[in-house]
Amino acid sequence: MSFPVSLQDIIKAHQRIAKHIHRTPVLTCTTIDNLVNRKVFFKAENLQKTGSFKPRGALNSILKLKEEHSKVAGIVTHSSGNHGQAVAWAARLADLPCCVVVPQGTPEVKAQAIKGYGADLVYCDPSPTSRVETCDKIAKDKGYFIVHPYDQYNTIAGQGTMAVEFLEEVPELDAILVPISGGGMTSGIAIAAKAIKPSIKIFPVEPLGKELGPCLKEKARLWKNPPQFVDTIAEGIRTQQLGHLTFPIVCELVEKQVFTVSNKEMVEAMKFVWQRMKTVIEASSAAGVHAVMSEEMRQLDPSLKNIGVILCGGNVDIDNLPW
Amino acid sequence: MSFPVSLQDIIKAHQRIAKHIHRTPVLTCTTIDNLVNRKVFFKAENLQKTGSFKPRGALNSILKLKEEHSKVAGIVTHSSGNHGQAVAWAARLADLPCCVVVPQGTPEVKAQAIKGYGADLVYCDPSPTSRVETCDKIAKDKGYFIVHPYDQYNTIAGQGTMAVEFLEEVPELDAILVPISGGGMTSGIAIAAKAIKPSIKIFPVEPLGKELGPCLKEKARLWKNPPQFVDTIAEGIRTQQLGHLTFPIVCELVEKQVFTVSNKEMVEAMKFVWQRMKTVIEASSAAGVHAVMSEEMRQLDPSLKNIGVILCGGNVDIDNLPW
Repeated sequence: MSFPVSLQDIIKAHQRIAKHIHRTPVLTCTTIDNLVNRKVFFKAENLQKTGSFKPRGALNSILKLKEEHSKVAGIVTHSSGNHGQAVAWAARLADLPCCVVVPQGTPEVKAQAIKGYGADLVYCDPSPTSRVETCDKIAKDKGYFIVHPYDQYNTIAGQGTMAVEFLEEVPELDAILVPISGGGMTSGIAIAAKAIKPSIKIFPVEPLGKELGPCLKEKARLWKNPPQFVDTIAEGIRTQQLGHLTFPIVCELVEKQVFTVSNKEMVEAMKFVWQRMKTVIEASSAAGVHAVMSEEMRQLDPSLKNIGVILCGGNVDIDNLPW
Repeated sequence: MSFPVSLQDIIKAHQRIAKHIHRTPVLTCTTIDNLVNRKVFFKAENLQKTGSFKPRGALNSILKLKEEHSKVAGIVTHSSGNHGQAVAWAARLADLPCCVVVPQGTPEVKAQAIKGYGADLVYCDPSPTSRVETCDKIAKDKGYFIVHPYDQYNTIAGQGTMAVEFLEEVPELDAILVPISGGGMTSGIAIAAKAIKPSIKIFPVEPLGKELGPCLKEKARLWKNPPQFVDTIAEGIRTQQLGHLTFPIVCELVEKQVFTVSNKEMVEAMKFVWQRMKTVIEASSAAGVHAVMSEEMRQLDPSLKNIGVILCGGNVDIDNLPW
């Protein structure tokens, strides 16, 4: 099956963005390997520019816009924070005006960071519908281009660059665990990884309440409408529904087995990583860490010996820790 | 002037321990460079085995003991935590019994880690005198060798290996800021760095209350006896007095200008590093970070362009953060 985003698009995206982003390190932890009885490799996107993987997709989108249009008036997006920071950062790098719509309740550290990159900040009601409407209105009024947090092919291609780097560095990976929200990262990684190494398995990791499993099994959008946020401490992955572009890709390429992680489990994994690995990760990253250390993982096919985990971000409001 | 520890001893120590320890990375942060208006390089010993620089000295001491004695009954030491973990780790690696004396009030995370490396834990009163006496008694009763946290030449040589790695990686360093406690790390780094690059300047960073400045200027041990702990959140550097072996080395090789850091300043620097650099450091490391970002630093000789800072440890009791 072919998709509108190919490995070739992802490699081109990588060429476009590589000199501006960090090639993030792959971390390992002997304690975790011993506990899990497999080799675990962490792609440390918490050390990426702006503190999450999001600049990959944002910068690819914006640079491609500039290649394709003689005049770009500006950029607008909506985001719970990490994508907002990334777009603000990428727009400044591309020398374009930028406006970021964020839901009320966004951690102050993320809001400050967005403003720090020189973008205008617009607050909206904390619902998926409100942020889309506010964003659309600004786009129309100002003639700005929308850079979607996950449901655009250029965003998907940008996020896929993580898998290119990861498999270059650890070609022996048998599986990758990816925290999933709108599905941009998961679909990009799945397209790249499966094209490079068809035997690799991609497992989604969701916050409790997302209910992705039944949707994947039925290949149907069983979620309630209008779209909701999941009640989770991992505000980076609180979007319940996958995108309309990402969902078919995820259905096709990703395993049906979904790892589901509670708030309490995320907190435990977060503390473990901070204390043992000395690296600051946010709750959405911790979901992946919990998954790889879980009982469910222990019962997984033992031939999957080398497991990758995406530490997708490290933006934490340090004065309001979830414990 | 020559000292009982030479660069040659430190290079031999490095050959002895290198395959067992991490060659820790050097981190940089554009935000800090811009704030400070110099280039700052962080030697990330928080990512060292056991979470601090201490295994360098501990392992060098223990491996050298085994080279020199046909039979070593065991190892005993006293430590507020990081050195204790390091000795426990090194003794297990060298397959020797080990006993660690720790003061009451040691963070539980450090005590657990020591036990996790298989050492016996003995609590003593939280005073420098009590821990020395308890340690001496165990050494006498069991015939164990004492591995001192700072005041032994093999410990000093081990800690000096940090400077060898640091200057190999960043030969352009003009100065190194070193958090100081008993002086083992500072004297080891000073001996190695000044021998490799005589123009380099070593600046000590102390917790408020240590009163190192007057002692260095007078070249005299002006501290009150019996030895005290400084009242600081940085329990890794709470020993007030330098050792009798380390003090003459520090007097001779280290700048008279001491950076003095308060608890509040350490907390600010700790939060800054956690949030911006996404790396977990303890308060003693944060002292060095505050120093390099301080007003005092801003007024320092502008020809010192490339500044090294030792992030000496990352062991934090995450349920009892100092804010």
